[in-house]
Amino acid sequence: MSGSTFGNRFTVTTWGESHGKALGAVVDGCPAGLPLCEEDIQRLLDRRKPGRSRFATARKEGDEIEILSGVFEGRTTGTPISMMIRNTDQRSGDYGNIAYSYRPGHADYTFDQKYGFRDYRGGGRSSARETAARVAAGAIAEKILETLGIRFCAYTRSIGPVSMETFCPEEILRNSFYMPDKEAAERAGAYLENCMKHQDSAGGVIECRITGVPAGLGEPVFRKLDALLAQAVMSVGAVKAVEIGDGAAVAGMKGSEDNDGFSSENGKITKTSNHAGGIMGGISDGSEILVRASVKPTPSISRPQNTVTSSGEPISLEIHGRHDPVVVPRAVVVVEAMCALVLTDALFLNMTSRMDGIVEFYKKREGSET
Amino acid sequence: MSGSTFGNRFTVTTWGESHGKALGAVVDGCPAGLPLCEEDIQRLLDRRKPGRSRFATARKEGDEIEILSGVFEGRTTGTPISMMIRNTDQRSGDYGNIAYSYRPGHADYTFDQKYGFRDYRGGGRSSARETAARVAAGAIAEKILETLGIRFCAYTRSIGPVSMETFCPEEILRNSFYMPDKEAAERAGAYLENCMKHQDSAGGVIECRITGVPAGLGEPVFRKLDALLAQAVMSVGAVKAVEIGDGAAVAGMKGSEDNDGFSSENGKITKTSNHAGGIMGGISDGSEILVRASVKPTPSISRPQNTVTSSGEPISLEIHGRHDPVVVPRAVVVVEAMCALVLTDALFLNMTSRMDGIVEFYKKREGSET
Amino acid sequence: MSGSTFGNRFTVTTWGESHGKALGAVVDGCPAGLPLCEEDIQRLLDRRKPGRSRFATARKEGDEIEILSGVFEGRTTGTPISMMIRNTDQRSGDYGNIAYSYRPGHADYTFDQKYGFRDYRGGGRSSARETAARVAAGAIAEKILETLGIRFCAYTRSIGPVSMETFCPEEILRNSFYMPDKEAAERAGAYLENCMKHQDSAGGVIECRITGVPAGLGEPVFRKLDALLAQAVMSVGAVKAVEIGDGAAVAGMKGSEDNDGFSSENGKITKTSNHAGGIMGGISDGSEILVRASVKPTPSISRPQNTVTSSGEPISLEIHGRHDPVVVPRAVVVVEAMCALVLTDALFLNMTSRMDGIVEFYKKREGSET
Amino acid sequence: MSGSTFGNRFTVTTWGESHGKALGAVVDGCPAGLPLCEEDIQRLLDRRKPGRSRFATARKEGDEIEILSGVFEGRTTGTPISMMIRNTDQRSGDYGNIAYSYRPGHADYTFDQKYGFRDYRGGGRSSARETAARVAAGAIAEKILETLGIRFCAYTRSIGPVSMETFCPEEILRNSFYMPDKEAAERAGAYLENCMKHQDSAGGVIECRITGVPAGLGEPVFRKLDALLAQAVMSVGAVKAVEIGDGAAVAGMKGSEDNDGFSSENGKITKTSNHAGGIMGGISDGSEILVRASVKPTPSISRPQNTVTSSGEPISLEIHGRHDPVVVPRAVVVVEAMCALVLTDALFLNMTSRMDGIVEFYKKREGSET
Repeated sequence: MSGSTFGNRFTVTTWGESHGKALGAVVDGCPAGLPLCEEDIQRLLDRRKPGRSRFATARKEGDEIEILSGVFEGRTTGTPISMMIRNTDQRSGDYGNIAYSYRPGHADYTFDQKYGFRDYRGGGRSSARETAARVAAGAIAEKILETLGIRFCAYTRSIGPVSMETFCPEEILRNSFYMPDKEAAERAGAYLENCMKHQDSAGGVIECRITGVPAGLGEPVFRKLDALLAQAVMSVGAVKAVEIGDGAAVAGMKGSEDNDGFSSENGKITKTSNHAGGIMGGISDGSEILVRASVKPTPSISRPQNTVTSSGEPISLEIHGRHDPVVVPRAVVVVEAMCALVLTDALFLNMTSRMDGIVEFYKKREGSET
Repeated sequence: MSGSTFGNRFTVTTWGESHGKALGAVVDGCPAGLPLCEEDIQRLLDRRKPGRSRFATARKEGDEIEILSGVFEGRTTGTPISMMIRNTDQRSGDYGNIAYSYRPGHADYTFDQKYGFRDYRGGGRSSARETAARVAAGAIAEKILETLGIRFCAYTRSIGPVSMETFCPEEILRNSFYMPDKEAAERAGAYLENCMKHQDSAGGVIECRITGVPAGLGEPVFRKLDALLAQAVMSVGAVKAVEIGDGAAVAGMKGSEDNDGFSSENGKITKTSNHAGGIMGGISDGSEILVRASVKPTPSISRPQNTVTSSGEPISLEIHGRHDPVVVPRAVVVVEAMCALVLTDALFLNMTSRMDGIVEFYKKREGSET
Repeated sequence: MSGSTFGNRFTVTTWGESHGKALGAVVDGCPAGLPLCEEDIQRLLDRRKPGRSRFATARKEGDEIEILSGVFEGRTTGTPISMMIRNTDQRSGDYGNIAYSYRPGHADYTFDQKYGFRDYRGGGRSSARETAARVAAGAIAEKILETLGIRFCAYTRSIGPVSMETFCPEEILRNSFYMPDKEAAERAGAYLENCMKHQDSAGGVIECRITGVPAGLGEPVFRKLDALLAQAVMSVGAVKAVEIGDGAAVAGMKGSEDNDGFSSENGKITKTSNHAGGIMGGISDGSEILVRASVKPTPSISRPQNTVTSSGEPISLEIHGRHDPVVVPRAVVVVEAMCALVLTDALFLNMTSRMDGIVEFYKKREGSET
Repeated sequence: MSGSTFGNRFTVTTWGESHGKALGAVVDGCPAGLPLCEEDIQRLLDRRKPGRSRFATARKEGDEIEILSGVFEGRTTGTPISMMIRNTDQRSGDYGNIAYSYRPGHADYTFDQKYGFRDYRGGGRSSARETAARVAAGAIAEKILETLGIRFCAYTRSIGPVSMETFCPEEILRNSFYMPDKEAAERAGAYLENCMKHQDSAGGVIECRITGVPAGLGEPVFRKLDALLAQAVMSVGAVKAVEIGDGAAVAGMKGSEDNDGFSSENGKITKTSNHAGGIMGGISDGSEILVRASVKPTPSISRPQNTVTSSGEPISLEIHGRHDPVVVPRAVVVVEAMCALVLTDALFLNMTSRMDGIVEFYKKREGSET
C-alpha cells in the first residue's frame, strides 16, 4: 500500500499540497446508510482552522469542504466518498525566498533527497495543511463511532512548560488553546507572548480520551490497537512521542503498581484501575482509551538561523510570513481524527473474530431478505 | 492485511503460541542472492534467550531455529523463507491454576472478549515468546541492511529508576542487562534483587540507534519512517511509549533549541545537531536514527493480587513459575529486530521514488543480460 | 485494502458515480520527475469518449480532466496525483423510470442487496463511466512505461460474430470500432445496424498486446503477472472471460504443440514460439504479452424485458435513453489502461528481486549525492 | 503485500519448494471457535494426491499435514494457523540433468531472469507441488463456508478434445479424472493412453460450481468477486484462461439472449436465467456461481525438445522422471480451494457494507456480555 492511504477496511487516501489547487481525501469502505452532509465534516474542520486567536496564523484558509461522491439523498451509499477543499488563499510570493534553502526543522532537505526536487510552496505535501484532509475523513469516522456510543475528548495538556492542573472538559472549547484548564490557558497565552517577542516558538502535549469502546478491538500481533494508534498519531507532522495510558512513566513503576486488577459487579467485569490506558495485549479492554502525543515547537521562526542552500552554500535564514508560534492547539483535532480512523477500522476488522458472530450475522441477513 | 503480517515489500508473518507445538515466521520479499544460514539467525535469537542471568526465567527455551524453505545452496532464492522453532520445554502444568482467571496486567481478559475463549497455556499467542519469531525475521533484515552499511546498536537505557550515565557500546554485550554502563548495570542488579525480595517486578527503557541509513527512506504521509517505527515498536508486548530523537522532551523546548540546522563540507550537506533523531517530515535525513521505548514492569508477580475468574468470581491470585522480574533486557533485541524490519521495507519502497532511478535500474539490467 | 484501490506500489483509487458531481482518481506511488500535463491524460481519455460514431451514445461526456495535485512545474513530485472530471451532462430525468426496477443484466439488484439501497442515477458507481478514472490513471502508467520502451497495442478483435481476419495496426485508430481490419470493421457496422433495428445489442472480444516488457516481472505465487492481469481486466464491468496467450485454446492442445522452446543468437536467448503469451510461471519472459477479454453485450436494450421492481412486482421494462449497442470499442482503452496499471506496479515490485540490484542502486545514489 | 500472501481478512501465506525440507501455509484471520483437526484438511489434500491412477505420477507424496498453531482443544483460537507438509520423497537425482537447461513450457528461464538463479530441484517454488499448501488453506475456508450452507462442486469438464456430455455429480469422485460423466472419463483415458504412447501430454478444462452463496459478496470496483476469482484461479500454475458464467461465449451473444431477468415468488426475488454465473456488477446475486479454467498440457514430456542451456547453448532435452500426462484432474481441487479462499474473504469483507448491520452486531455482542 502506498504512503497516502491509511486503514484496512475503512481507508482514507489523502492528496494535495499546501499551495496547489486543492487538497482532499477519498474515504473507501464507509458503510452504506450513514446520514452525512458537508456540515458534519465542516464542524470538525473548523476546529483546526487558523485565525481563532492571535496565536494562530493570519492566513485565511477557507477550508470549505465539498463532498463529490458517495452520498445520495443524504446517506452514504457504500461507495467511495471523495471530499475536496479548494485552496483559495495562496500567496505563493510569501515563500519565494526559501525555495532553494533548507529550513531547519523542516522536511525540505529530506524531500529533496527522496524525490530529487520538491514543491517548495508552503511546504508542499509536508505542510501541516495536509492534515485538513485527515480531519475530513476523521469526521466521517467519528460519525460512525458516535452511532455506537463511542466518544472522543481531545485537548491540549501542556504548552511549553505550562501544563494543565485541573480537568474541566467544558472549558476545552472555550479557550483558543483547547485546554481543559482556564487558568493554565491564560498562563500558556502569556508564555507564547514571550516566545513571540523573542521570535521563537513552543511545543506541547496533546491528549485524546476515548470512551464507550467495546472490548475486543485490535488485531494481534502487528496490528494491535495501540500499535496502530502509535502509527496514526506519529504520522502527524510534528509529533515526536506517542504514549498509551501511563506511557513512559511505566518504566519507573513496579508491577504491583502498574497492574490493573479486575473486579465484578452484577456479573459485569471491570478493571479496578486503568494504568494500561484501555488496551491490554493490543486489544481494547472496555475502559477509557488514553493516547498522548508530544508535539515539537513550530520550526518556522523569524529569528535568523544558520543553514545551507540546496547547493550547499551557508546562509542565514529568516522565515517571515504567517506561522503559528505553536501548532499544538490546531493539532488537537488532527490527533482526534487519526484516533477515530484507527478505531473505526479496528471496529470493522473485529467483526470476524468469532465464528458464531459471523453465522448469526448472515442468518439474520438471510431472514431479513425473505 | 491480517494482524500477523508486517511490512509491504519485505514482509514477515509470524505464528505460534507459547506452549503450542512450535512457533515461526515466514519472510516474503527477501531478495535473491543473500548468503544465509541458520547460524545467522541463531546469533540474534540467542540474545533474547532466557537463562543468561539469575534475573531471567529459568525456563530452558531451546529456541533452535530451522530454515524450511527459501534458501538454496547457501543463498536466498527470492521465495518465502519459512523458519520454525519447536517448543521443547512445555511444562503446561505450571500454568494450570490460571486457566480460568484474569491475570492483572495480562491479555487474558481481552483475548476472551475478542475470541470467546483462549489458549491459556503460558499466555498463548500473547506470550512474549511470540517475539522470537520477530527476531528470526529481523536477523534476515539486519543481514540485508549490513550489506549496505546500516548498523544497529540497541541497549537498555534504564531499569526502574536506574539509568545509564555513560555510553560505552562495548559494555553492552558484557552485562546481562545489555546496558552500556557497567556501574549502572550493577546498580540495576541490586535494584532487581530488591524487587524480587518483595515479590515485585520492574520496567525500563530501551534505546536503538541506527547508523548508515541513507537519506530518503520513509513514505509520506501515513507510512512515514517514524510512524512505522512507532507501530513496530509499540506492537512489542509491554511497550507503552515510543519516542523518536528528543522524543517527549520536545514539548518543552523552543523552536530555536529544537531546530536542526544544516552545514556543508566539501559539498556534503549534514545537520549541525540531531534533535529530530534522524527523521525529518517522516523521511530519514542521513544522520543517526534514535528510537526509544518505555517498557512496563513484568505483570507476572508472585505476591497475591486481587482479580476475578472468567465467570466474575473474585479471587486472590499468586502467579508462580518462571518469570523474569524485568523483561527489558530480553526485549532489547526485539526492538532492534522490529526497527530492522521497518528499515528494510522502507529501503525497498524508496527505490521507486524517482523516475531516473527506475530508468537507470532497468537500463543496467538490460545491459547485463546481453 | 478497500475495493476502490488497485495496485501495491503504483496505486490508483477511483471514486465517483455516473451522475454525481464528479468522478476521479488518486494515483499514489508515481515516481518524481515524470513530465506530466493534462493533455497527456486527455489523449487517452478521448479514446473512450462516446460520440465518435453513430454506434456510441449521443450523450456528451466532456470528460475534461483536471490535475489537482502532485505535479509541480510540469513534473510529478512523487506525491499523490489527484485527477477529477466534472460531470456536466447529467440529464437525470432520463433514468427516473428505472429507479425502482431491477434491470436485467445490470448491477441494480446486487447493489441493493449489498448496500440496502443505491444511487440509481445512470447506474451510479456500477456505471461504465467509472472506467474514465481508470483510463486517467492508466495514462500516467503508460507514460512511465513508454520511458522504458514498453508499448501497448489494444484493439477490437471481434464484434458479435464478426472477427478480424487481418492485423493492420495502423487501421486501429482509423475506424470507430478500433479494429485492425478495415473490412471487418465495415461488416461489424452492418451487424450492429441490424442489432439496433431489432432493439438489441452485441458483445465482442478485445485484445491487448504489450511489447518491450523486460523479463522478470510478476511476483510468484499469488501476484503472478497473469493473475493480476486477470484481476485487472475482469474488474472491467462487462468482461466475462480473460485469456493469456493461446488462452482457452490450450485445453485442446498437446504439450508438444503448446511448449515454447528457446534458442539463442549472439548470446541472447529468445523463445521460438509464444503460445504462453509472454508469461511463464507468472513472470514475464521478454516476449510480447497478449491479453484477451470477452465482453458481454450491452445489457441496456430498448425492447421490452420481463423483470421485477425492488418490491418484487413483475413489470415489463423498456430501457430508453442513450446507450451504446456495443461497449467493446469504448472498452478497448480501458483494458489497455488496466494492463498498464498492472505492468507499472510489477515493474516497481521487481526492483527488489535481487540483492545485487539493491546494493548497486544505493551505491549509485550515494555516489551521486557527493 | 508480497506475492505469497492472498486475501485481505482471511489471508493465506504459502511457502516451500518442491524438493526442499517442507512446504506449508499460514492462515491468518480465521475466526475463533471453528472445530478443526488435521483430518479436515487431509481429506481435501488427498484429492490432489498423485498415484490414484496410472495417469498420475508414481511419486509418493505423503502430503501428510501437521497443524502447528492456532488450534486449541479442537477449535480454532483466532490466531494464525500454521500447517506444514514435510517433503519425504525427494529423489533429487531425477532432476540433475535439467539443472542448467531451460525446459520448454516451464518457469526455469523466467525465474533465472528474475532472481539471478533458481532452486532447480523439481521446479522449486514454481512446482505444482506448491498448490498443496493452497489446498490446505482452502480446506479451512471450505469448512467455514459449509457452516453457512455454501457448497462447492468442482470437476473436470474436458481433457484434450474429450468433453463431458452429461452432468452426474455422484460420478465425479468415482473416476480418476473427476469427470461427472462416466463415459467421457473412459474416452479421456483412451485419449491419454495415446498421448503417452507418443510421449506427449494433454490439457483440459475445470469447472467449479458454488451454491448457497448469499447475495452481496464482492467489493466494487477492483475487488469485484469475479475479478478476485480470476486472479485466484489464474494464479494456479498451468491455467491460461478464466471464465465466469457463460464466459467467452458472451462475446457472440445478443443482449436479449445474455440478460438475466428477475422474477419473484412469495416475495423472494430470483433470476430467471444465469448467464452471468451468479455475479452481477462484481457482486454475488444469490444464484449458482460458475467458474471455468482452461489448463495447458503438462510441459514435461519425454520426447526430445529443442531448447538452450542457461549459457545459451542449444541442446535437445528429454525430460524423464515422474510426470502426469495431464495435470487437470489433480488441479480440480486446487481451483476449488482457490475459489473457497476468495469467497471466505468476500464473506468477511461484506459484513461492513451497511451501517445497520454493524450497529446490530455490536448491540448484540454488548448484550451477550452482561
